[in-house]
Amino acid sequence: MAERLIYLPLGGAGEIGMNAYVYGYGRPGKERLILVDLGVTFGDMDGSPGIDLIMPDMAWLVANRDRLDGIFITHGHEDHLGALGHLWKRLDVPIYARAFTGALCRLKLQEHGLPAEAVNIVSARPEVIDAGPFKVQFVPISHSIPESGALIIDTPAGRVVHTGDFKLDGTPVVGEAFDPAMWQQIASEGQGVKVLACDSTNIFSPHPGRSEAMLANPILEWMVTQPNLVVATTFASNIARLKTLAEAAKASGRKICLLGRAMRRMVSVGLETGILSEFPETISPEEAADLPRNKVLLLVTGSQGERRAASAQLSRGRYLGLSLAEGDSFLFSSRTIPGNERSVIRIMNALSELGVDVYDADDGFFHVSGHANRPDIEAMHDLLKPRIVVPMHGEHMHLREHVQLARSKGIAAEIVTNGAMLDLTGDAPRIVDQIETGRIYLDGNVLIGAMDGIVRDRIRMALNGHALVSVIVDEEDNVLPDAWVELMGLPGRTRGGEDLAAHIEGELSEFLEGADSRVVRDDAKMEEAIRKVTRQVSMEEIGKKPEVTVIISRLMAE
Amino acid sequence: MAERLIYLPLGGAGEIGMNAYVYGYGRPGKERLILVDLGVTFGDMDGSPGIDLIMPDMAWLVANRDRLDGIFITHGHEDHLGALGHLWKRLDVPIYARAFTGALCRLKLQEHGLPAEAVNIVSARPEVIDAGPFKVQFVPISHSIPESGALIIDTPAGRVVHTGDFKLDGTPVVGEAFDPAMWQQIASEGQGVKVLACDSTNIFSPHPGRSEAMLANPILEWMVTQPNLVVATTFASNIARLKTLAEAAKASGRKICLLGRAMRRMVSVGLETGILSEFPETISPEEAADLPRNKVLLLVTGSQGERRAASAQLSRGRYLGLSLAEGDSFLFSSRTIPGNERSVIRIMNALSELGVDVYDADDGFFHVSGHANRPDIEAMHDLLKPRIVVPMHGEHMHLREHVQLARSKGIAAEIVTNGAMLDLTGDAPRIVDQIETGRIYLDGNVLIGAMDGIVRDRIRMALNGHALVSVIVDEEDNVLPDAWVELMGLPGRTRGGEDLAAHIEGELSEFLEGADSRVVRDDAKMEEAIRKVTRQVSMEEIGKKPEVTVIISRLMAE
Repeated sequence: MAERLIYLPLGGAGEIGMNAYVYGYGRPGKERLILVDLGVTFGDMDGSPGIDLIMPDMAWLVANRDRLDGIFITHGHEDHLGALGHLWKRLDVPIYARAFTGALCRLKLQEHGLPAEAVNIVSARPEVIDAGPFKVQFVPISHSIPESGALIIDTPAGRVVHTGDFKLDGTPVVGEAFDPAMWQQIASEGQGVKVLACDSTNIFSPHPGRSEAMLANPILEWMVTQPNLVVATTFASNIARLKTLAEAAKASGRKICLLGRAMRRMVSVGLETGILSEFPETISPEEAADLPRNKVLLLVTGSQGERRAASAQLSRGRYLGLSLAEGDSFLFSSRTIPGNERSVIRIMNALSELGVDVYDADDGFFHVSGHANRPDIEAMHDLLKPRIVVPMHGEHMHLREHVQLARSKGIAAEIVTNGAMLDLTGDAPRIVDQIETGRIYLDGNVLIGAMDGIVRDRIRMALNGHALVSVIVDEEDNVLPDAWVELMGLPGRTRGGEDLAAHIEGELSEFLEGADSRVVRDDAKMEEAIRKVTRQVSMEEIGKKPEVTVIISRLMAE
Repeated sequence: MAERLIYLPLGGAGEIGMNAYVYGYGRPGKERLILVDLGVTFGDMDGSPGIDLIMPDMAWLVANRDRLDGIFITHGHEDHLGALGHLWKRLDVPIYARAFTGALCRLKLQEHGLPAEAVNIVSARPEVIDAGPFKVQFVPISHSIPESGALIIDTPAGRVVHTGDFKLDGTPVVGEAFDPAMWQQIASEGQGVKVLACDSTNIFSPHPGRSEAMLANPILEWMVTQPNLVVATTFASNIARLKTLAEAAKASGRKICLLGRAMRRMVSVGLETGILSEFPETISPEEAADLPRNKVLLLVTGSQGERRAASAQLSRGRYLGLSLAEGDSFLFSSRTIPGNERSVIRIMNALSELGVDVYDADDGFFHVSGHANRPDIEAMHDLLKPRIVVPMHGEHMHLREHVQLARSKGIAAEIVTNGAMLDLTGDAPRIVDQIETGRIYLDGNVLIGAMDGIVRDRIRMALNGHALVSVIVDEEDNVLPDAWVELMGLPGRTRGGEDLAAHIEGELSEFLEGADSRVVRDDAKMEEAIRKVTRQVSMEEIGKKPEVTVIISRLMAE
């Protein structure tokens, strides 16, 4: 069979988060593979209570890891590298990244006691990394973190450009500017670009994106007019924003105090790797507490309302000896990711109760997006003239809109979601296989499958409460009086004011007294019968059916 | 002691939802009282899993119900009347409302087998309702439901205007237009307006609000260009919007099919009470299924992504014999309430997977808000010239912003949140008491207190999982081998691959063997010790501490 070029997203396609894209080249089923990015997404109470991190299921790739020639990390965001520490060991192949990104990758591995040497620090184009049949180059592209790299993946079937996350920013404050001339050059080499795998995040934003540099003046003008303490929050990885905020502080006579581990870590990795050539001097929380309030900027984590981050802690009162007061100012220099609204609003209200004035990015002065908007995506199409567009980094609606945009311009395009294998060899992309894929949860320090039922049971307990029934059966298969019922997350009293547990116990005892001996002798049958009675009685008494766990203890003759 | 005029919000102040505002007049502690609105808010997985409805705690008012002279319902939204069926019985005083609102109130009572006659249907101003020392008039004001009524509450201490929910809409499509001349008249009568208790919802929206009538053309222009089936969703109570959508359908040759109980109910109550003088003919789902797709508009519930509403059902496939297909159009003629974003986005993506084109209100063509924006709130201040502004219907940050706005114009104003009693007698409002207040949850069909710990336990089980331990102690205080452990919502295996329940059982058995007899004889001590061991072992093995329920069964000598 002829060799083919395939694309197989394991994460990030049909969702925003946990990016993991496989490319392959070779005979069907024998393709040599590379993986682009290995990220996480975050759990939420709605769909994954108790889960900190969600990762793509790597089962298919692990099963085929003898065919895997390398992992390429485009940039340092958690949704692109966050799973390395948890999953790299199962793949055990070289990781390639540029210096700053690579330093972050190494930290991820080291946190899990894995060898930092697995990460190969490479340079931007013209350096070429050979990985099986692929020749890969990192191409600087602008985004909301420095050193974001698009990838040129040259294959025997033609050139693939994988944008990673990008925007068209000519003045990104920190890191490399978007360089149209270079991209024109890339498009004109050899046979040109066969495939553009392209970020779709902001496909619904109709106006051209704005540059990071546009924020410097509004932020400075704002900061100098604030009468007291100023707190600003943004993603710690948005080093350009940190710099803009810090420079504004410096220019308005404020010292900068970084709060939150991620904030300090990003600045230090930025300085160590030379991404940040300079950053204004920072002070400790103790020093900040001793200065006049109008001489301080706190740069803090928690722009998404995370409960344990510095923003939330400050909103609840004191944090590391610092506290906010009437007349202080708090800036959300960030966009709220859908799903985090209530958490962010909770913090805003808590700040309001403290008398703190809150400013957010709603009017556009204090935040710009890191992703290409619709006209910018179109400009990228125009610049690279790909024969095929594969939208990625988007939910289904983003991918669909992006496909429609590409097709409207005569470019072949296909909606490809996680697990779909796309054959890119010919002129028209076509889906040739569907791989079993899914999500892995980090629960405590154990990895569990999203479909294992564990989280489903948690959600059910949260919605329905949990009733526990314990019965003891003696040596002669008599059920001892009485059944014992404990309730967790259920009303103590029925609608009529009776004790609910006692009421269920009564009904169960009655039932068990009359129970058939074939039921009493059979654990499964007895459990099922007890569960049914418990749920039925609860439904009658409180209008809901709890989850029920039954423990049957059988006494043994000594 | 002198008589005084008081204001005491029990719900709706410091939050958006479950409105319930008390006014009182008389000697301190002996004031005669009225209640304005008795609404609900909705539970969510984040803070109140398993809870359908949340209501204000009426304990204070129930304790003082001999002083309560009536309940006035301003309009028909759930957050203003939704708790009537659940709580009215505890108050048992006359309810006053205008015809359409009153019909909705009666339905609420009837659903709970309560007497519809408790609701007194009254007319708008000039009708005056005497309630103790209060003389109350309903004044038509525009909002996103017809017949929204502001209240004039005349008291011996002066005139209070309670806006209810409002916007300044001169052309509301259905219902009464905002009438500046009438409000000028109201402001000029007698001593003028002493207190304006005013909606704060949109205080952060800087531009003047837009009229409902502005939507007719964009919606019609959009509808005529849709090639296939059109589905539109909005709040069922937004009868003007339903009419606009239905008229556009009619004008574009489509028949209208209403899906969702609330949708049908609102239209029928609207027609019965004369609020709707006409509404285009509607057809059944069966009839809709038989028509060509481009001849149908489905008007459906579920604009907030509610799982069981028609929108969600349609997005998942077939519903009542109807299904969506490639080329159909789905319009969200609504704003997404913060917290509902993920649910709405989930539906949008499901529709995208079906090939349905989704349109939303983001560009402003297909939705206008029902609340007064900042300039409109200011206009209301200017029109009524109150001596005191009391912001209500807002979270803390809204109330604070509204207070700042009023004070900037020289009007006395105070932030008053639920439970704070405000004395309005003098020129400057002051908080004179803090009442114990809170939230009541409807769980199944039982009312429970938000602070009862029931929901807290559910959240803990959802985050941490639940471990159940059963031990049996014999007649001589010997613990029988072995402890039995059942896990719910916890990984079955430890990080090392061992069976977690078996491992905990082993550790518990070991602990119990060596346990002091003073511990074994004491249920509380043994329970505590078992809980501690279970949590500790779990922490070591899976990195998290579950909730633990212990059942100790003691065998009795026969």
